[in-house]
Amino acid sequence: MTPEEIKKILEEVRNGKVSVDEAMQNLRDLPFEDVGFAKIDHHRELRTGYPEVIFCSGKTTEQIVKIIALMYDKGGNILGTRADTNIFNEVSKRFPEATYNEAARAITIKRTNPEVPESYISIVTAGTADIPVAEEAAVTAEIFGNRVERIFDVGVAGIHRLYQRLDIIRGGKVIIAVAGMEGALPSVLGGLVSKPIIAVPTSVGYGANFHGLSALLTMLNSCAAGVSVVNIDNGFGAGYVASMINKL
Amino acid sequence: MTPEEIKKILEEVRNGKVSVDEAMQNLRDLPFEDVGFAKIDHHRELRTGYPEVIFCSGKTTEQIVKIIALMYDKGGNILGTRADTNIFNEVSKRFPEATYNEAARAITIKRTNPEVPESYISIVTAGTADIPVAEEAAVTAEIFGNRVERIFDVGVAGIHRLYQRLDIIRGGKVIIAVAGMEGALPSVLGGLVSKPIIAVPTSVGYGANFHGLSALLTMLNSCAAGVSVVNIDNGFGAGYVASMINKL
Amino acid sequence: MTPEEIKKILEEVRNGKVSVDEAMQNLRDLPFEDVGFAKIDHHRELRTGYPEVIFCSGKTTEQIVKIIALMYDKGGNILGTRADTNIFNEVSKRFPEATYNEAARAITIKRTNPEVPESYISIVTAGTADIPVAEEAAVTAEIFGNRVERIFDVGVAGIHRLYQRLDIIRGGKVIIAVAGMEGALPSVLGGLVSKPIIAVPTSVGYGANFHGLSALLTMLNSCAAGVSVVNIDNGFGAGYVASMINKL
Amino acid sequence: MTPEEIKKILEEVRNGKVSVDEAMQNLRDLPFEDVGFAKIDHHRELRTGYPEVIFCSGKTTEQIVKIIALMYDKGGNILGTRADTNIFNEVSKRFPEATYNEAARAITIKRTNPEVPESYISIVTAGTADIPVAEEAAVTAEIFGNRVERIFDVGVAGIHRLYQRLDIIRGGKVIIAVAGMEGALPSVLGGLVSKPIIAVPTSVGYGANFHGLSALLTMLNSCAAGVSVVNIDNGFGAGYVASMINKL
Amino acid sequence: MTPEEIKKILEEVRNGKVSVDEAMQNLRDLPFEDVGFAKIDHHRELRTGYPEVIFCSGKTTEQIVKIIALMYDKGGNILGTRADTNIFNEVSKRFPEATYNEAARAITIKRTNPEVPESYISIVTAGTADIPVAEEAAVTAEIFGNRVERIFDVGVAGIHRLYQRLDIIRGGKVIIAVAGMEGALPSVLGGLVSKPIIAVPTSVGYGANFHGLSALLTMLNSCAAGVSVVNIDNGFGAGYVASMINKL
Amino acid sequence: MTPEEIKKILEEVRNGKVSVDEAMQNLRDLPFEDVGFAKIDHHRELRTGYPEVIFCSGKTTEQIVKIIALMYDKGGNILGTRADTNIFNEVSKRFPEATYNEAARAITIKRTNPEVPESYISIVTAGTADIPVAEEAAVTAEIFGNRVERIFDVGVAGIHRLYQRLDIIRGGKVIIAVAGMEGALPSVLGGLVSKPIIAVPTSVGYGANFHGLSALLTMLNSCAAGVSVVNIDNGFGAGYVASMINKL
Amino acid sequence: MTPEEIKKILEEVRNGKVSVDEAMQNLRDLPFEDVGFAKIDHHRELRTGYPEVIFCSGKTTEQIVKIIALMYDKGGNILGTRADTNIFNEVSKRFPEATYNEAARAITIKRTNPEVPESYISIVTAGTADIPVAEEAAVTAEIFGNRVERIFDVGVAGIHRLYQRLDIIRGGKVIIAVAGMEGALPSVLGGLVSKPIIAVPTSVGYGANFHGLSALLTMLNSCAAGVSVVNIDNGFGAGYVASMINKL
Amino acid sequence: MTPEEIKKILEEVRNGKVSVDEAMQNLRDLPFEDVGFAKIDHHRELRTGYPEVIFCSGKTTEQIVKIIALMYDKGGNILGTRADTNIFNEVSKRFPEATYNEAARAITIKRTNPEVPESYISIVTAGTADIPVAEEAAVTAEIFGNRVERIFDVGVAGIHRLYQRLDIIRGGKVIIAVAGMEGALPSVLGGLVSKPIIAVPTSVGYGANFHGLSALLTMLNSCAAGVSVVNIDNGFGAGYVASMINKL
Repeated sequence: MTPEEIKKILEEVRNGKVSVDEAMQNLRDLPFEDVGFAKIDHHRELRTGYPEVIFCSGKTTEQIVKIIALMYDKGGNILGTRADTNIFNEVSKRFPEATYNEAARAITIKRTNPEVPESYISIVTAGTADIPVAEEAAVTAEIFGNRVERIFDVGVAGIHRLYQRLDIIRGGKVIIAVAGMEGALPSVLGGLVSKPIIAVPTSVGYGANFHGLSALLTMLNSCAAGVSVVNIDNGFGAGYVASMINKL
Repeated sequence: MTPEEIKKILEEVRNGKVSVDEAMQNLRDLPFEDVGFAKIDHHRELRTGYPEVIFCSGKTTEQIVKIIALMYDKGGNILGTRADTNIFNEVSKRFPEATYNEAARAITIKRTNPEVPESYISIVTAGTADIPVAEEAAVTAEIFGNRVERIFDVGVAGIHRLYQRLDIIRGGKVIIAVAGMEGALPSVLGGLVSKPIIAVPTSVGYGANFHGLSALLTMLNSCAAGVSVVNIDNGFGAGYVASMINKL
Repeated sequence: MTPEEIKKILEEVRNGKVSVDEAMQNLRDLPFEDVGFAKIDHHRELRTGYPEVIFCSGKTTEQIVKIIALMYDKGGNILGTRADTNIFNEVSKRFPEATYNEAARAITIKRTNPEVPESYISIVTAGTADIPVAEEAAVTAEIFGNRVERIFDVGVAGIHRLYQRLDIIRGGKVIIAVAGMEGALPSVLGGLVSKPIIAVPTSVGYGANFHGLSALLTMLNSCAAGVSVVNIDNGFGAGYVASMINKL
Repeated sequence: MTPEEIKKILEEVRNGKVSVDEAMQNLRDLPFEDVGFAKIDHHRELRTGYPEVIFCSGKTTEQIVKIIALMYDKGGNILGTRADTNIFNEVSKRFPEATYNEAARAITIKRTNPEVPESYISIVTAGTADIPVAEEAAVTAEIFGNRVERIFDVGVAGIHRLYQRLDIIRGGKVIIAVAGMEGALPSVLGGLVSKPIIAVPTSVGYGANFHGLSALLTMLNSCAAGVSVVNIDNGFGAGYVASMINKL
Repeated sequence: MTPEEIKKILEEVRNGKVSVDEAMQNLRDLPFEDVGFAKIDHHRELRTGYPEVIFCSGKTTEQIVKIIALMYDKGGNILGTRADTNIFNEVSKRFPEATYNEAARAITIKRTNPEVPESYISIVTAGTADIPVAEEAAVTAEIFGNRVERIFDVGVAGIHRLYQRLDIIRGGKVIIAVAGMEGALPSVLGGLVSKPIIAVPTSVGYGANFHGLSALLTMLNSCAAGVSVVNIDNGFGAGYVASMINKL
Repeated sequence: MTPEEIKKILEEVRNGKVSVDEAMQNLRDLPFEDVGFAKIDHHRELRTGYPEVIFCSGKTTEQIVKIIALMYDKGGNILGTRADTNIFNEVSKRFPEATYNEAARAITIKRTNPEVPESYISIVTAGTADIPVAEEAAVTAEIFGNRVERIFDVGVAGIHRLYQRLDIIRGGKVIIAVAGMEGALPSVLGGLVSKPIIAVPTSVGYGANFHGLSALLTMLNSCAAGVSVVNIDNGFGAGYVASMINKL
Repeated sequence: MTPEEIKKILEEVRNGKVSVDEAMQNLRDLPFEDVGFAKIDHHRELRTGYPEVIFCSGKTTEQIVKIIALMYDKGGNILGTRADTNIFNEVSKRFPEATYNEAARAITIKRTNPEVPESYISIVTAGTADIPVAEEAAVTAEIFGNRVERIFDVGVAGIHRLYQRLDIIRGGKVIIAVAGMEGALPSVLGGLVSKPIIAVPTSVGYGANFHGLSALLTMLNSCAAGVSVVNIDNGFGAGYVASMINKL
Repeated sequence: MTPEEIKKILEEVRNGKVSVDEAMQNLRDLPFEDVGFAKIDHHRELRTGYPEVIFCSGKTTEQIVKIIALMYDKGGNILGTRADTNIFNEVSKRFPEATYNEAARAITIKRTNPEVPESYISIVTAGTADIPVAEEAAVTAEIFGNRVERIFDVGVAGIHRLYQRLDIIRGGKVIIAVAGMEGALPSVLGGLVSKPIIAVPTSVGYGANFHGLSALLTMLNSCAAGVSVVNIDNGFGAGYVASMINKL
């Protein structure tokens, strides 16, 4: 809450335009809905342009359905990540318009059409096994109102594949680069394009990849500037940041 | 055993009030019951005001039931942590008054009513997925004779939810703050309240959370003073320490 | 700021007792002093009973002296931790009443006498090399108005030394247990006393102690309940938490 | 090199407008200058709008001066990071217009004035000790042609300081959040602003901060969306990404 | 693409021998086949003498079969690693000539006979449990056209077994040494033979082997020269490098 | 093979007492049986007094039965560790005299009676959940011809239980101390007894025990001398070393 | 204290042979001398046959000299480990008979001659750089009354050197094997000798040895039985355990 | 020693051509020179074609000079790695023909001219700061009799520099790729060349590079086949393996 907003409320109280109780309600910051096990932040979409998102992992199906129901009543778009098919089945019983991206393990219920900018987000993967994480990023960016270009399996071991797709990659306002194993793709891209790159390490690989640690460290230590990193397998986070940048 | 206690026993031996064998029994410290695979410390509740607790993980159901039976004969309250439903089913066959907190995976058999102080313990979670650990803390604190206030899903990503519940949180004599992922909740709380905070990192999250390591390190490095930390997912430990402080 | 406080301010605005600007000042939360490189929180001592503390490591001597000067003008007690002798020399040039605990590397300027409760804090170390961390805890607790009992070099390798001092250790309302190497002291104490134990791992040791990691993990995994842990070598944090508990 | 560019070159060869040797030169990609121990990429500023930057650590002073001399001849702005005062002294002997930001340990030689957008970059630190990393980010952003707002020492332990500066922080088109110890600042900011946040963990702290690992993990696991992360102490990388976004 | 090749193409364009479009095709580097989820590099076998290999883990069975079908049409040998029996069953339905090495979990379809040099590759394991990784190396080397000698279970705990097989081990042009647990075999071999040794750590063991980390570190720190290392359990990588060296 | 043994063989060759081929056989070190996937070291029991032991994990049941059959023909005692019940069932079909210690997951076939010394080995556990590892140590020590005393569940959280059993613990010639969680038992024992202690960390615990790492580090950093350590959960290794020492 | 000892004391109290105060003194366990910063355990040599040892690292020179002075008065042998030359110089000023092993960084003052058994301890190193740790073990074993054989620089990279010294190594009743880098020596020795091996990892090496971690893990995971491990660079601990075993 | 060699010796003993003592000498394996702190393996050059190399780190200057003197008498080439200038100064006093590569910190004394094959070794670095490690590899390869091509500062951030030097890189029979920070160079090279690549991670970088761990993991997880890895900063090891392969 900015000082200007506070001042305005206080002046309205002084002028009697607003009662003490109303003012208090406003000053106690932003509203949310409390269902005990969760506090749902309906104000979020107004505030940030982004709907609240349900991270399904670690919640019971019952809790998830209840949260969706409350969000549904407000009319915004709904995104549930890390949802297995059992969860989707329960959700779609109640909300038949729900759709499921199986690779991304993401549930979406589209109820409004956010404004979509001209520019697009390039989503690049090093390998085929990185696609689920890339799809989570894509679903996230799309539900938030972005166009997405998917360029999959262009890792550095066969770098000519990357060169052939460089035009379309470079065309994006921002690039999401998803890679497991040694995670070198963002570093190579960073030397070839001059757009911000959101690097997403994946847990794809084995042995000394330590469940994605190797790709994570590679990306953090990138010798190419312009690269920032999100958590291992965090397609959602990458899609969210990319959407923010794409909409600037 | 304090020097005063030793002196008293020796004087009683000298005076003939107590036989050598009785004295020896007393001097060989505190009693326990030996069932081979376990040595049950019945004296504990007298000594510390806390019943012995059964950490069920790693024990066979047979061993658990046998230990409970021995403790039951002594009449104190019984708490079994990390117990799955199979264990509870076997326990409740024999002790129908046993109750089970499914989220906490805790078995309790209440047989006495410990004194309950006026003050209460605030148990706060950052997210919904942290609730099982918080419930383990709550069950522990309650069976030891404490009032508990649960404030769930008030993590720092929507900090206005925390502010709205700050009164009730601050009202506790001691605060348990449970958080996974980046585990920032105790640091923020530490700057807002002046009560001791027991921070409990959870393994909630994925990728570079390394099964709770990220939240653990965050809490250990808290820039806010007044925070001490227990093991990852250790709701029991937090409930125990909080109970100790609440009863001071 | 509690709802009651907000309500009161709003009513005073409504009644004209307080101007909009004054109210705004109050609503914009707590005051601090901004010197560019630092924002000094003078209100802290009023709010929490604890003065703001200067963590000297990573600050220039010039910055430290400037911060102390600003705090000095407010008249509260001042504590500077992790200060080497060079820093102290500069500080004492300007504030001759400043004192320095060399083992603890702590500067204190005592200007008021906080209320000191009857109860005391037991500070126990496993070895001689753990004393600097224990002294940091002691200095912190003392400047915040607590009595402290020091019981040093009673580690588990010669456990009879611990038994002989058990009376005085148990007499404390709360216990700080400082240990490096394998860090077993808090676990053993936890089985012998029924007071909350703040465990402080130290970086004392070598090889697979990994700069205190071994002691830290030991303490987090303590099989004895009642133990919570602060950061490696964080005597200040332990003294702060213990003071909070001692003053309950 | 895009297909269109290749096509154009080939057609010019076919038409005889360009000789085979000239075409070959163009097709062999972008030019650089080879001084044996280094290959200097003069084309970079044209290509990306960013001058090549000298990471001084691990290079001899002789090498650094030689690289600067070659870059100087081309007339672009020059930035040298991780340079100690000895290096600066040698550099300024030869290039008296060089300036040195001591906190940032950065050398700059400003020779052109890049276009500066209206929007600015907010650079926020949790503590005073994080300032050097923040200054590296600021110097980088400024030499690349950006306006910067510095908001220092507003960490989560005294969160009202953050609230008071929220207007100016929110005003930036992109935010750089620099924090050591537990690194919670970006998570809290992520819930309060709707701009992309570049999080920079610092090695400030001690013990279980493991030279910045704790802050790094915190930031990667942020429960607030909109946060991406660069390497520990990598002010330069943050300044570079932020500049890219600010100029979109 | 070498400068000579570029020059030749340009001269052919100049001379009109080759059209601009044909030249462009050639200049846009090497061909591959794009099936959306994968870009298959058919040119690889021509270029390097090695067929592209399918790392099956993380791909759906459907994707694997589709990739094999595309590769099958080109006529080269096909190798699929990390394939479970379900995958093999689906593959063999469509390609009955496919064979499966169960220990190695590798599918091979042999369609051409690469030239096989006289020299052979020695594949040595420390224990019986290391055989699956050794078999992956063997299958890889064989499909690429190499003779292989298997010497299994000659670890350092019974070093006389190693000595008795030293003649045949030394006879190889290059040696693959596979070991889990403490991984000492390559170090001992390195002191006894003067051939390059490719060391493969395996995840065999338990406890402080940390899924192969112990063997990996042992091999990287080998006091015997002549040893280089591939990833944990990476039999394929070892077979590939050994094949390269054997064919020099 | 000692120089004396070599000299004797050479003199017998010189004297014609032994043929060149016989001598060669002897000089080529110790015999073993080669079954391809394993080289069985029958000479081991003669050489060291210890039978070869089968580490069943990672071997197929077929391989295990075959190895046992070959060892059985030689008449020594047989020990198979880390064997699940399926393996035991297959083994006992063929060797009905095989016995199975379920807690230890160990198969034994006793065919000879090794000499058993008067002295015994004390095997101590901190908790009930550590018993399986202790039983593996006990089975190992017993099959190698040692008397064993089991003292279970005497961890440091209730140290009076340890004191009451100290006589029998101290009576052993060597002590095996098995503990998970914080692993403090060997340190405490090391200060109370003057016998060599073999410390065995177990993976019992959760969270920051990191699968036994916490107990391992505790034991390696023991401030009490006289403690050496084997791998996490390595009851076999502890039993083996203890047997060696007990038979000195 | 055994039950028999307690019983005897109680009967003497009953009979009036011993006063209550004398008995209390005895029952309050073993004596030590308290100098504030340290509690010196003079009874230790009587109890265990081993003098108390001063770990000098982390103690001030003043503290060390004071502790030695107190121990000196009791007449036992004195060992100070991890002592630099400055410490030794101060110690030798006051105790001119003190000697210094520079490689081991150990101070010894020999005042009594403990009984020395016939058998000896073999101390083996892999390399020359491991000698300081081996010397610490040797000094420790010698001051405790053991004969020692030093066999240095026989690491596995030139295993014939080990074979040539195998007779003398095998002749020891117990073997200390000291190795850095990959630490394979104890594993190889474990397959060649049937004596208990105390393995000492050293921090010798670089890169992925991680200050001795690689050698530590190698030794803990040794596939050869009969090996137990002490902390990295812990020559003292190895000498102590070996002395205990050698004196059995 | 091969069976054929043993047989030959035995037949000579039988025939009286060789005395028992001579034969014994031969059978006791290969000779070395024992100077107490080191066992120098003069036979090594004959056996493997490689001189023994002195790893100077951790040895005293006195020890180093003595070892060199003994090696010098045998006439082979001498290589000392990890030698600072102080060591070189002492060495060159006694052996004026010694030369010093300052970047590599390597001493060489060239006394014989090993045969040099036609083929060469490509040594590639990602950055300027990686040159010291590359020079260690180069010095090693050269003293062992190899031609070397140095291609420095062609890291993936400006990949056109790599392409321009690809011809000369590809021309090598084997490639050494040296890189710090994110270490992506070998992965990219692996997709462009069909020669064995020895990857050398360096400790160049900061923060989450963890002293070379990031580059090490990147290289171990390379998605491009044909890459094997040596220890962090281990230029010597890379030069040695490459020399072995180049001489095949």
